[in-house]
Parts: sequence; structure tokens; C-alpha cells
Amino acid sequence: MKKISIITLFLVGFQLAAQTLQSPSGSVKLKFSLVNGKPSYEVFYKNKTVVNPSFMGIKLKEGNDLTAEFTVENNGQKVVNETWQPVLGEQSSIRNNYNELTLNLLQKPTKRKLNIIFRVYNEGVAFRYEFPKQPNMNYFIISDEVSEFNLTGDHKAFWLPGDFDSQEYSYMETRLSEVNTENIDMNNGIGLKSIAGKYVVQSPLMMKTSDKVYLNIFEAAVVNYPVMHLDLAPNDFKLKSRLVPNAIGDKAYLQAPCVSPWRTIMVSDDARDIVSSKMILNLNEPSRIDDTSWIKPMKYVGIWWEMHVGKSTWDYAGSQNAQNAADGKLKPTGKHGATTENAKRYIDFAAKHGFDGVLVEGWNAGWEDWFGNWKENVFDFTTPYPDFDLKAVNDYAKSKGVKMIMHHETSGSVSNYERHLDRAIDLMKKYGYPAVKSGYVGRIIPRGEFHDGQTMVNHFNFVAQRMAENKLMVNSHESSRPTGYSRTYPNYIAAEAARGNEFNAWSNGNPPMHETILPFTRLLGGPMDYTPGIFEIKMSAYDPNKKTEQVHTTLAKQLALYVTMYSPLQMAADLPENYEKHLDAFQFIKDVAVDWQESKYLEAEPGDYLTVARKDKRSENWFVGAITDENARNTEIKLDFLSPNKKYKATVYEDGKDADWQKNPKSYVIKTIQVTSKSKIKLHLAQGGGAAISLTPIN
Amino acid sequence: MKKISIITLFLVGFQLAAQTLQSPSGSVKLKFSLVNGKPSYEVFYKNKTVVNPSFMGIKLKEGNDLTAEFTVENNGQKVVNETWQPVLGEQSSIRNNYNELTLNLLQKPTKRKLNIIFRVYNEGVAFRYEFPKQPNMNYFIISDEVSEFNLTGDHKAFWLPGDFDSQEYSYMETRLSEVNTENIDMNNGIGLKSIAGKYVVQSPLMMKTSDKVYLNIFEAAVVNYPVMHLDLAPNDFKLKSRLVPNAIGDKAYLQAPCVSPWRTIMVSDDARDIVSSKMILNLNEPSRIDDTSWIKPMKYVGIWWEMHVGKSTWDYAGSQNAQNAADGKLKPTGKHGATTENAKRYIDFAAKHGFDGVLVEGWNAGWEDWFGNWKENVFDFTTPYPDFDLKAVNDYAKSKGVKMIMHHETSGSVSNYERHLDRAIDLMKKYGYPAVKSGYVGRIIPRGEFHDGQTMVNHFNFVAQRMAENKLMVNSHESSRPTGYSRTYPNYIAAEAARGNEFNAWSNGNPPMHETILPFTRLLGGPMDYTPGIFEIKMSAYDPNKKTEQVHTTLAKQLALYVTMYSPLQMAADLPENYEKHLDAFQFIKDVAVDWQESKYLEAEPGDYLTVARKDKRSENWFVGAITDENARNTEIKLDFLSPNKKYKATVYEDGKDADWQKNPKSYVIKTIQVTSKSKIKLHLAQGGGAAISLTPIN
Repeated sequence: MKKISIITLFLVGFQLAAQTLQSPSGSVKLKFSLVNGKPSYEVFYKNKTVVNPSFMGIKLKEGNDLTAEFTVENNGQKVVNETWQPVLGEQSSIRNNYNELTLNLLQKPTKRKLNIIFRVYNEGVAFRYEFPKQPNMNYFIISDEVSEFNLTGDHKAFWLPGDFDSQEYSYMETRLSEVNTENIDMNNGIGLKSIAGKYVVQSPLMMKTSDKVYLNIFEAAVVNYPVMHLDLAPNDFKLKSRLVPNAIGDKAYLQAPCVSPWRTIMVSDDARDIVSSKMILNLNEPSRIDDTSWIKPMKYVGIWWEMHVGKSTWDYAGSQNAQNAADGKLKPTGKHGATTENAKRYIDFAAKHGFDGVLVEGWNAGWEDWFGNWKENVFDFTTPYPDFDLKAVNDYAKSKGVKMIMHHETSGSVSNYERHLDRAIDLMKKYGYPAVKSGYVGRIIPRGEFHDGQTMVNHFNFVAQRMAENKLMVNSHESSRPTGYSRTYPNYIAAEAARGNEFNAWSNGNPPMHETILPFTRLLGGPMDYTPGIFEIKMSAYDPNKKTEQVHTTLAKQLALYVTMYSPLQMAADLPENYEKHLDAFQFIKDVAVDWQESKYLEAEPGDYLTVARKDKRSENWFVGAITDENARNTEIKLDFLSPNKKYKATVYEDGKDADWQKNPKSYVIKTIQVTSKSKIKLHLAQGGGAAISLTPIN
Repeated sequence: MKKISIITLFLVGFQLAAQTLQSPSGSVKLKFSLVNGKPSYEVFYKNKTVVNPSFMGIKLKEGNDLTAEFTVENNGQKVVNETWQPVLGEQSSIRNNYNELTLNLLQKPTKRKLNIIFRVYNEGVAFRYEFPKQPNMNYFIISDEVSEFNLTGDHKAFWLPGDFDSQEYSYMETRLSEVNTENIDMNNGIGLKSIAGKYVVQSPLMMKTSDKVYLNIFEAAVVNYPVMHLDLAPNDFKLKSRLVPNAIGDKAYLQAPCVSPWRTIMVSDDARDIVSSKMILNLNEPSRIDDTSWIKPMKYVGIWWEMHVGKSTWDYAGSQNAQNAADGKLKPTGKHGATTENAKRYIDFAAKHGFDGVLVEGWNAGWEDWFGNWKENVFDFTTPYPDFDLKAVNDYAKSKGVKMIMHHETSGSVSNYERHLDRAIDLMKKYGYPAVKSGYVGRIIPRGEFHDGQTMVNHFNFVAQRMAENKLMVNSHESSRPTGYSRTYPNYIAAEAARGNEFNAWSNGNPPMHETILPFTRLLGGPMDYTPGIFEIKMSAYDPNKKTEQVHTTLAKQLALYVTMYSPLQMAADLPENYEKHLDAFQFIKDVAVDWQESKYLEAEPGDYLTVARKDKRSENWFVGAITDENARNTEIKLDFLSPNKKYKATVYEDGKDADWQKNPKSYVIKTIQVTSKSKIKLHLAQGGGAAISLTPIN
């Protein structure tokens, strides 16, 4: 008996032999080992450890956990170097280049198989769990995932509290050891908060080591699985996956064969490698839509910001209780924004200035008591208010060559939305709406579910699929944050899923550094409908006595955001009358492209600044956006991205010398110069400021 | 200060003055009092107490409970005596005659209002809570209801365990003091059990006192509210409402103004008053369907029993795992029941024998691993198996003048069903299906919900409404049990929601007394699709080596069930080939009506026997059904319900002299006699037996 034990030990010892894999460039290295039957990995960047040995595994609700007692039965490597063309994107062609290692693990006592797949890219490592088809595991319930990310030091981190229902926070910038969700100012305008604990943070988590190495922990291809937050041990800088539970505490219901999402660790000593990485998109499946000709980028205006600033309301009958309306009839307050007349005004404005679409929120019955009551049957998504003539508005839009954008606020009642979805889609098709903006403000129904749980992830993906079947585009707000699924369903053109510009209208707002962090975090997963373009920076303009809020940027920075915040769907969010007052600056919003041939990140430092140049997919025009945080900044950018031997007219929209986001946000200067690829342009960015440049070839 | 206290006490004393209300006949009396601010009621029958003082009230999740600190602000009485015509029913006209008392209660500390409404009928008392529109209560969550039913003794009770997911039990017949759900044989074929506790029983709860008074506690108009089970204190015979919770333990989400369901206490010293009562229907709202011309009674056959007896299968590819099918293609086993060919065979049989419809179960993809996995996406309700040609089958049925009945098994995945419902309805309309049989076998998704919770109650009612909007009828199986909602949505023509005949095919079956209890319990709430008519009583006929189960009745009793188990939708559940062997007995199933002019309960004793005579709504024909339990029975029935001065041909289908449900179930005799309203007919009912009579006027 003893002899056999020794032999077994020898085999286990053999299993300890580590497997390594490096990136195509050689700078990133992955090491996998079985430590006493437990899977473990390490990550190195330029031969320095960036992730210490970290265990991996899955806990099951029933039966043995898939965390230990493993042997490696087999392993295989693969090299992939391919390119693909996104339907819409920051660049017309994306390279997908990685080395892959698959470990076929066997848990001998249970005869269960688990594969772990690693991919090593030049900018980081990804791994996922694969549950192959097998006799001893078919349906199973994940009670926990124990993917560790054991960091090597007390890095600086840009973090959001681990909230199962919202990502609409400002970023905290602290050392890992200082993370504590109790230190967050919760008077921040977020209506629904479900914070998981003191030391739980959201992914993507952007970090910087004291060696000036940038690290980012995130996930890709979250499909039929909950969102992963991160449990932090603040004393030893260890992170562990924290999956979002469902109503009864389970994490995921799966059936083999299937896979988990990818867990990603991006790493570089150049922040531009992170912000420009297409790793998250690359880790998603190719498009499942064959004919994508109907998926089109859009610039739009809409009846929306005027409600945020208090000029009008979503609801028709004020803060009455819809259910209690006398004689079942609502009495209008006269402040309703979504009237036929007002819609026509926006359509006129869109047509005049060349916008593709007009969004109208508040068009449909139900807004009287839509929020905060956990009410199931709020909207039916098909009944307009009496003062909104669906047919007249759509006919008028058609006559002007403008598309209407549908709006579906669910108020979190997903059961109700799914029940009505087909009818809502029929209505969209009847009137020719090409896209819908959906909203999920409020506690989820089915009750007990969170925005970030498997049920809701599946819902968001289901809506994308169902809309795709009907050739409709989706822009979801208050959804779980995207993880690259827009590669698979490119009609999922944008999402909010972060703190958007509207928080500036009625809360403590978005601090000036906010937009310099989003491209390193939220935007890695897909386009964001941030709704920039606010020219009337101070809300006191709408009510000098009551409103003190303001946008935390200069006007010029609002222009720059059209370039720095990538999205194929961009809103010019301010009111037509505010644009009329600054038609010279508005020209940039009219000119800027939203779908790109290529993108060059020129300067990047999370929390500080970002400068990017992008080339229009449909012309030879380039656009540059540069933003800074609360600190003023002078920079000089080289235009060597321009085609050589060509002359360009550069229109530079810059902060005025006296500009300052707080004191003088509307000071800007516009200058026109002639440039070539050899030119440099000096830019002055005010505190909370930015600059935007359009570059047009001169024939 | 003291003086004021005394005055207050005096007012409270004044409030103690009881309010009483009696039934139109005077035999039932209700007394309401406020006992130290707590609402309380008592019920008397023929001047004897049948419900001792019992508290009433509602507990709220947030804020003060609505159980105490009340004063009566106002009260009003009302007398109602009206008749209404059900679309389908046991009688063509229903009298609704009651006295009503409304108590307007005020909870002074919270300024909240609660109304309690009592209705006293000749056969019992009903009460409900009404939450009027008020400033201090709009949205609210019910955490508990504390309606007590304090009984006066250790009555005999016919009870089912309080199970949040199933009513498919056989009845236990014990004293209240002997109730204990742990004593139930759980090897009873029920796939999903969620028993709430040792002393929790279901309503309706049928009882009999030692004074031979019959009592029944139930509820009516369960709309936007969970099902009420009953918590029993077995030592002092006190019952208390036990509402079914949702995934997070809440009971109901409501918005004022609104009402609770009615709580009903039926009482009589004649069991026929209970079994014939229309109180539950009367307590529901009138029909919300204006044009009901498309709602039609149906007798049907179908591809169903052959799966229960093991002759064929629902699934196309045996017990394979659908998700793992090689090349995505299922390999047929050859045992699939729902083939085009077999459907045509049933259509031929239906057409030949004058049946209205043919049900086909197992027609659609997904049955390979549909059960027991808590799987969300099982069926899409529109994709037929490759061997079932939807168009060919429906064309053939049309050519034969037969309607097809659609089948939607949800496997409990209600989220998935609601997502697909509109498309499923479109398919039904495309092919002309007039009705759907729906199924809810398995754990509910949204996960954590129960079949009997508010979410599911709302689902069942939603489906009825949605089908009504599309002029389609519904017959739900494994739904929560009906509480008279078919008055409001008469297209909800039937439900199962109790232990049906199929349990006889593969479990310990339904004991002979089962069908003598259902009319006193389950059927009070609405028609049941019991699926009678099994002629091949012993399952050994299908597999002599393996199958030992049998139906626990004689063949003649199977005929009687068409009369005793009221439903406007009745299946002839057995296989065509079994009917072909007994065409003489089958004649009764062909002849029997399913929608009635009037119904006369001639004899009734719960758990023992039941005899009922019904007159066809569309002819002068009468039909009589008589059944007994495990004891043989001889009876003589008077035909004084027949029109005087008319002669009738009576065809009597009776147990043979040697008949016995166990030893000789297929022994029956058929005789034809001429009768008038002055005639009497002697009937012999074997052990587990029954008799059926058709009475046709002789012109």
C-alpha cells in the first residue's frame, strides 16, 4: 500500500511541473501550476511578477467543489493571429493575436472534468473555465467562483463600490489599502444602491503600480453568467471574484458543455496600450448577425436634457398617482416635454443641422408614478400620452428625412417588459423606428434579482437578440456594463452602464477626472452613450433661485468628449436653443464622425488626461479630442498620423485663456490653421478643460 | 387629563358594540366586534357558533401593522339579490343573494384606513379587506395576513398538505387534531413538493362537525394576491391564513385602492348546499369579455393518455440530452406519440364519434430534457418536431370538421413562456387553434417563486387575459387552484390544479373516495379538466411484466364522472382502440352534455358518495351521474326533476353485479327503460363504482 502511495505522490509531483505561456511579443508571461491538486496561475510583465500565485476554481451548490483534487490529463497550445472587421468601431480592422493554452483537468474522486483556457495577448492575460460535456456533470448550479487576482503591492486604484445594481458612481482614486466603500459620499444622486460590502469593488478595476505599470482587471463575454465584482483583502492586496447572486443566493445555472466568461488581466507600462486594447472585444464571439447593412451609426438630439434641467417633465400629469387619476383620466400640468409640437421642433432642428435621429422620452403613458415603488405594471410600451401623436410625429420625421429613436423605460420591471416586448417591437416596426433606448431605473422585477445577476445579464442579451431578429438597434441605460458582446450582436450599439453626463444636471455631478477614467474602465467593454455636448454649463440658467448644479467641464471639453468617449451613437444632448447661441462651437458636433477607420491614442494617463485622434471611416477627415482633469494642461501634439503629402484645414476648438470649468466654463476660442503630417499643434486645456480639432484635407 | 381618558375609554367602549348581519334566510349569522381595537368576527349557523371569535388583519413589511388600534368610523349595509348568466356553467342562470356589511376602520395613530366587507349568503359568510385610496398608504407590501378561523371542535376534515407548489395529493380524511403532513405517504408520484409545515393545510378545507354540520373554508377572487393556505393549531382547532411568499419572503405588493381576495366560510347541515353553492363564482367580478360568442364548450380526445401508460413518449429522441444532441440533430426513438400520422388517427376518431377537438401533447421540440433541471429555455412553443407537420395536421383537422387543441408545457419556466407568448399565440391564430392546454410541471422560474405566490397567480390571470384578447380559451394544468376567476374571464374554461386521473396510470393513484371529495373542494373554484373516461382500467394491459397500476374505479364510474365532475371541457382520455372495444359504454361519453341548463344535486356526502342530475343547455336531455367511494352502495333516485307530462328514454350504465374496482372493474350493464318525472330508478354502485344515466324525451 505504501509503495502505491509513493507512486501517486510521484505523479502528483509530476503534475506540479508548471506550464508557461507568453505573449506574441514576449513581454507578458503566464505560468500555470497545480498546487496539491489546486489550479493556480501567475502573471509576469517584462519578467516582473504582476499577479502572485492565485488559485482558480468553481464552487457548486450540489456535490464536490471544482477547486481541488485535480490532475492535468492533457494540455494543448495554439497560436492565433487573425484580423476581423467590426460593423462599427474605433477602427475598421481589429487584430486578434494571442497564444492559447488549454488545460484539461480531471477531478479523480468525482470523475468530473474542468478545462481552464488561457490566452496571452501582448497587453495581458485572459482565462476562462470550460465545462465539457461529460457523464458526471450535466445541469449544475454555481454557488461561487474562486478566481483570485493576488496583486503584488499597494497599487493606486480607480474604483467603484461593488454594487449589484448600479455603476453610476464617480470613481474613487486611492491606494488599494485605502479602499472602503463606507468612505464614499452616498449623497450622489443614485436612486438605487446595493453595495455588497466594505471591501468589494467593481470590475473593470484600473490600477497603477508604484513601478508605473498599469494593470486592469475585468472580464469579457459575460453571457449566461452573472457580473463579476471583486472582493478585496485590503491588507495583502488580494482580490477574489465576487459573483452577483440571484434572489435565492445562487450565482449561475448552467448546463455542460458551457463556458464561464473570460477573466482578464491587462498590463502595460504604457497606459495607451490599455485604453486602446481590443482584447475584450477579441474575447467575444464573432457577429451572429449575417446581414448587418441596417446597423448604422447615429448622431441624435432629443427631448431628454430639458427634463433633467427641470424645464419640462417626462410625465403628463405631474406627480399625481396614475392609478388614482380621477375618472381614470390624467390632468395635464402643461409641463410635459414629449408633445407632438415639441417633437416637431426637435425634428426641425435635427433636419436643419444634419442629425440622423431624434429621441423622445416621456412619450408613453405611465410616468406619473413610475419610479421607486417596485411597481410591476408601469408601462405598456405602446400607449402614447394624449398630447403625443405617434403617427403625426413619425410622418413629420419621415418628411424631414430624420429617424425617430424609440424609448422603453422599464423602471426595472423586466417581467413586464418581456411580456410586452413583441408588441413594443411591432409598434417600432410599424412606424419605422430603427433603434430603441431602453432604461432600467429601479429595483428589478422579478423581485430579489439584481441588475448584475445572471437573470438580468440574460435579459439584456435577449433583448439585443430579439431586436436583432427584427433589425433594430439597442442602446441600453442602467443595464449591467458591457463586456464586448457588441461584437457578437453589433446591433447592441451602445449602453450607458456608468455615471453619465445627466448627473451633472441635478446631483453633485461628475468630477473633472471622471471622463479621463471611463476609457480605461467602462469603455473597454463597449461604447457608452455618455450624452455629451452640454453648452449651458450652469443649471442656474434654468432657475437662478433654486438650481446650483453645473457640468464639471468647460464647453470645449464637451466637444472633445465626442472623440475621447467612443460611441457609434452620440447625442448632442443640450437644448436646441442653447446650440443656437453657440453655432460656431456647435459646428464641431455637426462635423465630428462617430464611426472610425482608425484611432490613435496620443497621450493617456488614467485620472489625468487623454488625447486621441481618429479618422472617419467614410472620409479622409480626422478628429482629435484632448481632455484633462481638474488640472490645467498644456500639450503639443504631433499630427504625424495624417496622410503625408496632404494638406489639411485644422479647426481647433480650445478653452479660452481665462477658461475654467467652475468660474468661466463657456470661454472658448476657435481657430483655423493649415497643417500637414509634419505639423504640431500646441493646445491649452483649462482646469476641467479640453480641446477638439477637426482636420479636413484641402483638395 | 384623567377626564379625557375616561371619555376616550367610553368611546372605545362604544366601539365594542358588535355589529351583526344575517343571511337572507336567517340561518347564517355574522357578528363583528372591535376587541380593544382589534377587528374580530364570529359565525353562527342556526344559532349555534361555528366560528369562535377570530381576529382579522394585515401585517405590513414597512410601518404599523393593520391589526390593532382601530376605531369604526362608519359602517353601511346593503342587500343584494340579482341573477346573472354564466357563459358556460352548471346552470344557465345564477342567483347572487346576500346581505353586506362594510366597516370603515381608522387606525388613529397612523391615520390609515382599512375597510372590512362582509357578505352573508344562505350558505355562508365571506369577508375581504379593502384598502381605500388614502394619503398615508399608497404602495405597500403585505408581510402577512392574520385572518383567523377559530373552529369550535375537533371536526372531521378532508385535507391536503399546505404545499406552495402542488395540490396533486390524495385527500387525507382525519380529525383536525390528527392533521400532520408528516403522516402522508410521499411516494405518491408528485414531482415537486414544497410543504410549508407539519400543520399547514390547503384551502379549500372541507369539514364536518360531530353535529353533522358541514363547513368549508376557502377563498374567492384571488387576483394580484398569493394563494391562502391555512396554519392549524391542532390542539385548539384554530386556523390562520398562511399566504404563499415570494422569492424573498414577501407576500403581496399592492397599491391602494385595492382589495384582498374574499375569505369564505361555507356552512350547512345539508352537504348538497355546499357542493351546489355558487358563492365562490358570485364573489368574483362579472365577465370582462364583451363578445363571448367564441367561448364554446368542448369534448375532446387526444394524444396524451398513451404517453401516461407508456405506449408512446412526449419526446422524439428518448431520454437523450437535447443540448448534447450529436450535430445538433436529435435521433428519433420511434416511440414519439405526436406524429402527423397518429394525430390524423385521433382526428379520424374524433370526427367519427362527434368530438369537438383533438389535443396533441409532445408536438413541439424540447421534451428530451424538459423536466427536473430548473432549466429556463426548454420550449419555444412554436417549433414542431420533425415528424409533426403542423400545417398538414391542421389542414386535415379542418377537412374533418375537428378543432385542434394547442399544448404549451412551460416546465415551470414562466419567464420563458411570457417571453414567447405573443409568438405562441400568433401560431395558434395562424392555424385556427381555439384553445390551449398549458402545463406548469416543475420548479418555477423566476427562481424562488412558488406556483401559489402572487407572481404566479398574476401569471395565470395574465395568460387568461392575453388569450381572451386573442379570442382563445385556456385550460391550465399545474396552475394554482381556481377561485372563481372564470366568471371574470370565461375563456379560462378549465384547469387541473388537483390530482387528476393520470396519477392512476403510474403512481399509487387516486383512492376511490377521491372523486367524491373534489366537488366539495377543488371544484368550488371552477371547472376541472379531470380527464375521465378510462376504460382500460389496468395498466398491465400495456405491459404485463412491469405495470401493476390501475385506475381506482370501475368503468361505469368513469362514465359517471362526466356528470359529477363539472367541466365545460371534457376529455375522453382513453385510447381510441380501447373505446372501440366498448362502443356501447362509449355511447354515454358521446351523448353526455358539457354545458348545462340546470343541475340538481340529489345526494351528497363528502368522501362517500355524490349523485347529480343535470339538464343539457341545448336540449331537453338530462344526465345523471352517481358515484361512491370504496364502499358499494344501493340507492334509489327520484326523477322528479324531469319535465312533468313528458316521457323519457332512460339509458342506465351501471356496475355489473360482480363489479369491483379492484377485482372486476370492467363489469357493467346497460339497460334502457321508459320513465317520467314520477319514476324512480334503483341503482347499484359497486365498491369504487358508479352509474350514469342519459334521459332523452320521447317525442
